[in-house]
Amino acid sequence: MSVDVVQKNSKGTQNASKKDMRLANIYLTAAQIIERDGYDATSLGDIAKAVGLTKAGLYHYIPSKDNLLFGIMNYGMDRVNEVVIDPTRDIADAEERIRTFILNYLNLIIEDGQAMTIVITETQGLSSAQNRVIARRRRAFYDYLREIITDIKQREVAPVLDTAVTTHSVFGVLVGFAQWYRPGGRLSLQEVIDQITELTVGRMIGVNIAGRKNGR
Amino acid sequence: MSVDVVQKNSKGTQNASKKDMRLANIYLTAAQIIERDGYDATSLGDIAKAVGLTKAGLYHYIPSKDNLLFGIMNYGMDRVNEVVIDPTRDIADAEERIRTFILNYLNLIIEDGQAMTIVITETQGLSSAQNRVIARRRRAFYDYLREIITDIKQREVAPVLDTAVTTHSVFGVLVGFAQWYRPGGRLSLQEVIDQITELTVGRMIGVNIAGRKNGR
Repeated sequence: MSVDVVQKNSKGTQNASKKDMRLANIYLTAAQIIERDGYDATSLGDIAKAVGLTKAGLYHYIPSKDNLLFGIMNYGMDRVNEVVIDPTRDIADAEERIRTFILNYLNLIIEDGQAMTIVITETQGLSSAQNRVIARRRRAFYDYLREIITDIKQREVAPVLDTAVTTHSVFGVLVGFAQWYRPGGRLSLQEVIDQITELTVGRMIGVNIAGRKNGR
Repeated sequence: MSVDVVQKNSKGTQNASKKDMRLANIYLTAAQIIERDGYDATSLGDIAKAVGLTKAGLYHYIPSKDNLLFGIMNYGMDRVNEVVIDPTRDIADAEERIRTFILNYLNLIIEDGQAMTIVITETQGLSSAQNRVIARRRRAFYDYLREIITDIKQREVAPVLDTAVTTHSVFGVLVGFAQWYRPGGRLSLQEVIDQITELTVGRMIGVNIAGRKNGR
């Protein structure tokens, strides 16, 4: 693959989008390498090779390793916003909202690669200033899921346990999925997704548990 | 703290035990530093300083960094065997067995420090041969929990979903707990433990879910 230098011209938007797609590919590939080898053991040269760019070509997208992990994490979190959070903001039905949240999150993990989910939970390799930004974004994501779960509890859609413990634990199951799932096992991806949805929405949050006071 | 050189003498056992305790302290401290700074950024000098030994004194316990992570992981897994697995092997009642497993695991996370649980889930920093040993031990631990959960399903103590997905997801909640829990929050540790036990045993595994066919 040859180096694709993005030029500013009349097709600015189209090229920006092409640059975004190339950058997304770099981030996704870099996440896989970092997850496999560790951040410290990963060089920009390894990443350039894996995406078919020269080091000079990669430099056009990633000026220094210092910004690599921060770039990956922000990209991963942008994707969570775009695929998981934004599409669920306006769903009025509480049960449909949590189901869509979980389903979209699981699909994002598969679509963007499981390594991305694992890497965005890392806390090492960032500067303090970068770490504060990422911690704030992570917190906003946690707050959003907790708000959905709190809404389910308040509307008595399900007998929710403590909302903080439930929210953290649901994230534990989702991050765990990114770590253990391998395609080609006994269950199809769809079956695994159905099982995790039932485990989290039906059972942990409790919409399928007796004691539910209020159907929809 | 001065260097404690263990000498072979008539108090061999007592000294071995003292050495074991010192080694345990080194591993627990090293896990905290690695979890905070990353494996590559951690030096034996940092660890020696943190445990109050000279580098020469630490060398008596940890001859090289190559063996450090492997030593920590084996120590952490020995502890899981000792505190979580062995005490639950002979519990005949299926519900009591899973409750004891979860409770002992949560207590181990608190007792040995949350960093230990996080570090033993790492896959980086080990040689291939070391990685095979650790992967085998991790697999044995997974198999053991899955066996308990399968037993609950077969005896119809609870309406268990897929046993593999359930087992992985319960581990996700436990590892998540090691990552998010901080003392001094709104809930006491006992309350958090009660909530997680209800979430995992009562709900995910399902012993408190209607549809349970067989009480104990």
